[in-house]
Amino acid sequence: MDRNAPIGVFDSGVGGLTVAREIMRQIPNESIIYFGDTARVPYGSKSKETIITYSRQIVQFLLTKKVKAVVVACNTASAFALETLQEEFDIPMLGVVKPGAKVAAETTVNGRVGVIGTLGTVSSGIYKQYIHDLNGDIEVFSKACPLFAPLVEEGWLEDPVTQEIARRYLEELKQEKIDTLVLGCTHYPLIRKTVQRIMGSEVNLVNPAYETAISLRGVLQEQGLANEDSVYVKHKFYVSDGAEKFKSFANTILPCEVEETKDINIEQY
Amino acid sequence: MDRNAPIGVFDSGVGGLTVAREIMRQIPNESIIYFGDTARVPYGSKSKETIITYSRQIVQFLLTKKVKAVVVACNTASAFALETLQEEFDIPMLGVVKPGAKVAAETTVNGRVGVIGTLGTVSSGIYKQYIHDLNGDIEVFSKACPLFAPLVEEGWLEDPVTQEIARRYLEELKQEKIDTLVLGCTHYPLIRKTVQRIMGSEVNLVNPAYETAISLRGVLQEQGLANEDSVYVKHKFYVSDGAEKFKSFANTILPCEVEETKDINIEQY
Repeated sequence: MDRNAPIGVFDSGVGGLTVAREIMRQIPNESIIYFGDTARVPYGSKSKETIITYSRQIVQFLLTKKVKAVVVACNTASAFALETLQEEFDIPMLGVVKPGAKVAAETTVNGRVGVIGTLGTVSSGIYKQYIHDLNGDIEVFSKACPLFAPLVEEGWLEDPVTQEIARRYLEELKQEKIDTLVLGCTHYPLIRKTVQRIMGSEVNLVNPAYETAISLRGVLQEQGLANEDSVYVKHKFYVSDGAEKFKSFANTILPCEVEETKDINIEQY
Repeated sequence: MDRNAPIGVFDSGVGGLTVAREIMRQIPNESIIYFGDTARVPYGSKSKETIITYSRQIVQFLLTKKVKAVVVACNTASAFALETLQEEFDIPMLGVVKPGAKVAAETTVNGRVGVIGTLGTVSSGIYKQYIHDLNGDIEVFSKACPLFAPLVEEGWLEDPVTQEIARRYLEELKQEKIDTLVLGCTHYPLIRKTVQRIMGSEVNLVNPAYETAISLRGVLQEQGLANEDSVYVKHKFYVSDGAEKFKSFANTILPCEVEETKDINIEQY
């Protein structure tokens, strides 16, 4: 396997860019091939079977780009498809849920952790399961927030409406006196300030993106796959629909300039 | 062509059920084969090319069920794909936009009409175009309301948050002193009360579903395809994902009991 090969990163759309951004920051020598499944977004309300089918097509596409590892930068796909992908494909494959669960378990002091995410992620119970694998004494409280992703895509990041919706979604988690809250959807770091204001400054917000990038760095080093040379770093972006729209959103999130985004027909893979 | 054959009705998800409901009311002798593309919902933010590909697959699926006509019960698909479908397929094919535009043009007294819909429908400019085909003097004001469909799917139909979001989206249309407003997305009749409260009782809300059912009745009669016998009426429901969830939503909207909904793999068609 070529150390200069890129990392594949995928998400249902733009949310995974918050993970790509962390990888760029933490492992700047690595090139990224990003795929956003903008034709079939959102994943949060779809069934496990569908998410597995979609994720498999995307990994097959990424392999045509010779990626040396894949990051499933979507909580729903990590919850539903990661295990199957790890069985079916032969390269290192990481999700965002396990790293997020690890930080949450290490961060909480009072043993009360909240998780917010899509319907799919929350109903899968996967954060609870991973946190309990690390520490069975931690109580986990979950809440699906299906309007958060559309609000982020509308760009209403610190809007009064977003605050009111957040207040309502987060009410029960506040009452449970959690001291740690996992942002269990890659869109949510973009409304981090609103969530923090409502939860109060004493609640730690966990963004799994950072820990995922650190885990990826560890895996690459262990397996002798880390790129030691920054000369060939080059990020490329692909989507299943609306390349121009994706590009302008990506440019508001990423530290690098996204010059080109290509539309591909993902159903062919 | 068999008069007893069913009518194909499709939408990106549940919204088109408001159209199916009107067909059941206005032409009770007709059977419906409904397809909701719940795996690939929403259509409102996708490109024209993608919507055409998806719509073509769905019509091909409906033809395997021997439908005698197809209603494109989705404004975005009507805007982007109807013309192509009419060229490619040999059976009567109706959308919701033309009937909606017709009612709006006939209803307005002051010649100022508003249209609300998805990004796709609004940016296509198709309502404006059809309304102008009927009466070039009418001024048309359009506004995309991308959060309305997620709010309907969350079930927050008359919620204060929905009212605040609606107030904001509708503000500029109010200032334009429209006397007629087209609900240009099949989800919107479900938040009709909220929209009416904000626009005021003097503004006429146009729900294209009713007029679409009436147009369909006319087309079936003209072409000798109307079912004169109610003995064999039987509605069937298919989706591309989440059949159970669809069924429970459908049962809150439709007058008939939806006993069974089948999941199908739409990408095969």
